[in-house]
Formats: sequence, structure tokens, C-alpha cells
Amino acid sequence: MKAAIGIDLGGTQLRVARLDAQGQILDHRKTQTAARAGPAVVIDQICALVDELRAAALADTAAPTDDSAGIGVCVAGPVDPDAGVVLEGWTMAGWHNIPLRDLLAARTGLSVTLANDGNAAALGEWRFGSGQGCRHFVYVTVSTGIGGGVIVDGRLLLGHKGMAGEIGHMILDRNGPRCNCGATGCWEAFASGTALAQRATELQATAPDSHLHRLAQDRSLTAKDVVDAAHLGDALARRLVQEEGAWLGIGMTALLHLYSPERIVMGGGLSNALPLLLPEIEREIRNRAMPPFRDVPIVLAALGDNAGVIGAGALVFREE
Amino acid sequence: MKAAIGIDLGGTQLRVARLDAQGQILDHRKTQTAARAGPAVVIDQICALVDELRAAALADTAAPTDDSAGIGVCVAGPVDPDAGVVLEGWTMAGWHNIPLRDLLAARTGLSVTLANDGNAAALGEWRFGSGQGCRHFVYVTVSTGIGGGVIVDGRLLLGHKGMAGEIGHMILDRNGPRCNCGATGCWEAFASGTALAQRATELQATAPDSHLHRLAQDRSLTAKDVVDAAHLGDALARRLVQEEGAWLGIGMTALLHLYSPERIVMGGGLSNALPLLLPEIEREIRNRAMPPFRDVPIVLAALGDNAGVIGAGALVFREE
Repeated sequence: MKAAIGIDLGGTQLRVARLDAQGQILDHRKTQTAARAGPAVVIDQICALVDELRAAALADTAAPTDDSAGIGVCVAGPVDPDAGVVLEGWTMAGWHNIPLRDLLAARTGLSVTLANDGNAAALGEWRFGSGQGCRHFVYVTVSTGIGGGVIVDGRLLLGHKGMAGEIGHMILDRNGPRCNCGATGCWEAFASGTALAQRATELQATAPDSHLHRLAQDRSLTAKDVVDAAHLGDALARRLVQEEGAWLGIGMTALLHLYSPERIVMGGGLSNALPLLLPEIEREIRNRAMPPFRDVPIVLAALGDNAGVIGAGALVFREE
Repeated sequence: MKAAIGIDLGGTQLRVARLDAQGQILDHRKTQTAARAGPAVVIDQICALVDELRAAALADTAAPTDDSAGIGVCVAGPVDPDAGVVLEGWTMAGWHNIPLRDLLAARTGLSVTLANDGNAAALGEWRFGSGQGCRHFVYVTVSTGIGGGVIVDGRLLLGHKGMAGEIGHMILDRNGPRCNCGATGCWEAFASGTALAQRATELQATAPDSHLHRLAQDRSLTAKDVVDAAHLGDALARRLVQEEGAWLGIGMTALLHLYSPERIVMGGGLSNALPLLLPEIEREIRNRAMPPFRDVPIVLAALGDNAGVIGAGALVFREE
């Protein structure tokens, strides 16, 4: 049995795992990404963890043969999968046009496939998570930002330079707030966890008996604070969660019209609040989507934080 | 040499053509669609024109063999291409869940492929028009409404029930005007020719020396009136065209982020004004798109009113 090595390179964490063809994690390592140290140091980090995993696998088996089928690696930021180049590593210093695929292939002797992290996570959920059995589905991850990936007509949507599916950067209001990407009024600028925390920060002062007001005296509010307070029945928090659900529903309506998925799968930190968000999401879809699109289910992601690393591994088996 | 029969069934016109594998129209017929008479009458119309074309082709050649390779048919409204069913024929009475593919196949003895008209036109422009040579491109048609189709990763994007690529129904403002589709703030509601004519109608009263004001005394304004007046230097018309270009640019920015095309091709009535619209379209894209998406060219469609019928024919050669 061959095993894939999946690598999820984020600005905060670097995760490496050995996986079987069913997407089960056989062994894994993680470390904090040396995000400020530049690509050479980070690539050393990756290779060290890959070597550790391969050595551990060899020590573990009677047969002295390496069973690694290849490496799949996903990176936070735009990549060109055909060229194997990281165009821009977000929140990592010095990552411009780094030919990561060929660098890793030379260092490890394995074949390497590169993807954007949203696309890899979509692939992971499709093959082994909540997207199983669909020919068309959209994976949406909502946390600091909004990302994701699109499976349509039974294939991962890539587009020119692999840049399709930047679903966080649909424009939902031409006069909306400035987004991290430079545009204004992107979905991410309205509906990310960051945007939710910011609305909470702005509004807590107007609600002195809110739990959020008390919390805000000591520290910055987070999206999780809002969700927790909503669970406790806090009125302001409930209103904020309702508004968040509305923004998510508006964006998801657009995704339905643009990609016609059979299912939308939601992951990322805010997906923990999906039961709380769902009524408003579904209300917006019912009110806004064209009739044949209205009954598409919105489902919780199954792989949690492992979607990226599992999806990266799935890239290997896809190529076989 | 085999020929395809392309059929473009719209609510106003029914067009049928014989095409060679290079997309050249060998012969064609058109008539006014009996849109109120119900599907049976319209299907009779189609079969009559197909029979005429086939008879003319036979009379024209020495060899008494029918060279028809098959029929491709496109319809204005949502269709399920896999099932061969017209889900809803817009602006045609009684067209709900009509199994047009099988009905036409039974009547003509030819194999039939069905598509939505936007998708067929996109396919036509891709194979034989302004999208040639691209692996990824988006076709946008702007006239009464906004429609189009998406070619990505070298294939026509279909999605569940073939409903992907409803690009006119991206939501650009949750509080925007009601769209024909039932949602609010769709791109179509802001940027179609109808929307432009409506803005002109609202504003002409505020500009008594505008050419548009004089025209509006006698009749309803059209998008073409606005474009013509802008060409003549009319100040109000120029402002309206600028605003139209901005709305088009905002929507196209979203298309870039969602599908990552190498090119956007614009067709439909309003595309005649592309030179006038382009500066503002490009300004919005420059200001709003993420840097790697900004240099994608916006190009005029090449096939004009024939895009649908040629694309429908191209469906046949695609299936061979």
C-alpha cells in the first residue's frame, strides 16, 4: 500500500502528514511556520518534517522500502499549479514566485503537486469529507478571511494560473468596506470572522448590559466571543450572529447561481456556529436564489483543521 | 464532410442553420417564434425548418445521402443538458420540463444535444469567435438581461442540472433593485440594457437640454438611445454610459476572481458601445481586482447574433 505525504503550509502553522489512499492520517507532524525567516528556512522546515515522517514509516515496517507515492503541498495564497510556483505566500515574508514544487522534488526525490490551500481543502472534503458523492460542490471556509474551492463537473476548478474560485472576493457592495485584497465590498470584508468581530467591537458600546460590552473592557473581541455570547442568549450577540448569517446567505446565493453545486460545505472557525447561523443563511437563500437553486443543502465540513493536509495528500492520489 | 444543424430557440426568434466543422454557416432559416402557442407548435416550427434545410442540402449535392452529423439546440432559459430537458422556456408559454432533446431526436432521426443559450453562445465564441485559443474564458452578453457562459479548464462549465454560470445573477448590492429573477441587486438589475434605459428615463427630466429629454417626450428611451446620444457628446448620456461602464467593470471584476479567465468576451446589443464603455470598465477592474487579475483583456464578441446558432452547432462536433 502506497502512502501520500500531505503538506499544509500556512502563515502560522506548518502541518505534514502521511495518508493512505482512503484519506486516513497514518502519522503527522506540525510546527510553527518560520514565517518571517524567508522561503529557504521554511523549505528546510518542510524537508525536516518530511524526512522525519519517512524515517518513522521505514522504522515501522518490516520491509526496508519507502512506500511514499508522492507529495502534495498546499499554501495559503495564490499558486500556479501548472508551473508549480507559489505566486504569493500570504503572511509569509519573501514568498514571491517561489518554484516550491521543483525545490521540494529535488530535495525529497519525490514527485510533488502544488495547490492553493482552499482548493486542497475542497478536494479533501470532496474525496473524504462532507462533499463525498457530489459531482458539483463548493467548499467555503470562514475564519480570519473567506476562502474555499469549487468542484464542478467532477473536477477541481482551477482557471488561468489556478486562480479561479476566489470566492471570498465576490463584490457584494461597490461602496462597502475595504477588503484585505485591495478591492471594496468583498464578501470577505462583510462576512469573515474578522468582520464579525469588528462589528461586535463597534456595537458593544451601544449595549452596556451585553456580555460583549463587559468582555470588551478587558480585551479585543473575537468572532468566537460573539458566538459564545449568542449561545448564552445575549441579545446583541444574537443580532450580530443573525446579521452574519444574512451575509453568509447572500454570498452563498451568489455561489449557487455561479457554480450550481449540489451542496455547499462550510468549514473554518466560524463553521462551529453553523447551527446558529443556518436559519438566517437559509432565509436569505430562500428569498434571493432563483427557484431551482433554493433547496441546495448547507452542510458542516467533516475534516476540520485537517482538510488542508488531507486534501494535499489527495492531490497525490489524483495524479496517479 | 459532415454538417451540423444548429438551432437557437429564443422567445422572439427561432434560427436554424447548417454549419460545417469550422463553424461556417452553409445555409440558414429563421422565423418568428410562436411563443404563445405552446411547445407543440414551436416544435413543429423547428422541425419544418430543419426539414427545409436538409432537403435543400440534399438537392444541392450530387450524392443522395444526408450529411447531417446531428442537431445542437439552445434555448433561452434553464435547461438540464444531461436529461435533455428544457426546465423553463423564458418568454415562451407552456415551456415547463419539456424533453426537447428526445422529442426532436424522435422527429428528425438525428442525435440531439441541448444547451442553455448563454452556454451555447460561449461555446460558439470559444471555438470560432473571440475566445479562440483560450483554455479559460467568460462570455458575457448584455442586452435586455445579462447572460453568458464560462469556459474553464478547457471545458464548458455546467454544474448541477447545467445551471452554473448564471453570471447575470451575482448579487452586487443586497439592497439593490428587484431583479427579474426574483432576487434583489443582481448584476442584471444594475447593468443590463434595460437598467441603463431605466436610469436614462429617470434622469432625463433633470436635464432639459439633453437630447435624451427631447427623445423622451415622444417615446420610451432605449439603451441604444443613450449610446447614440453619448456618441453625439450629450452630457447626460455620457454620464449614464460612464455609470454603465462602472457597473460592468464591477461585475467583471467578480467574474475574474470567480473563474480566472484569460479573456472576457462581451456580446449582446450593448457590446456595440464597448469602445465607449471600456475606459470605465478597465478603471473599475484596475481599482478593484486583485493584482494578478488586472491585465485580463475585455474583448468584443465576433459572432454577433449568430453566436447562439453557431454554438449550438458546435455542440454537435463536441459530442463526436
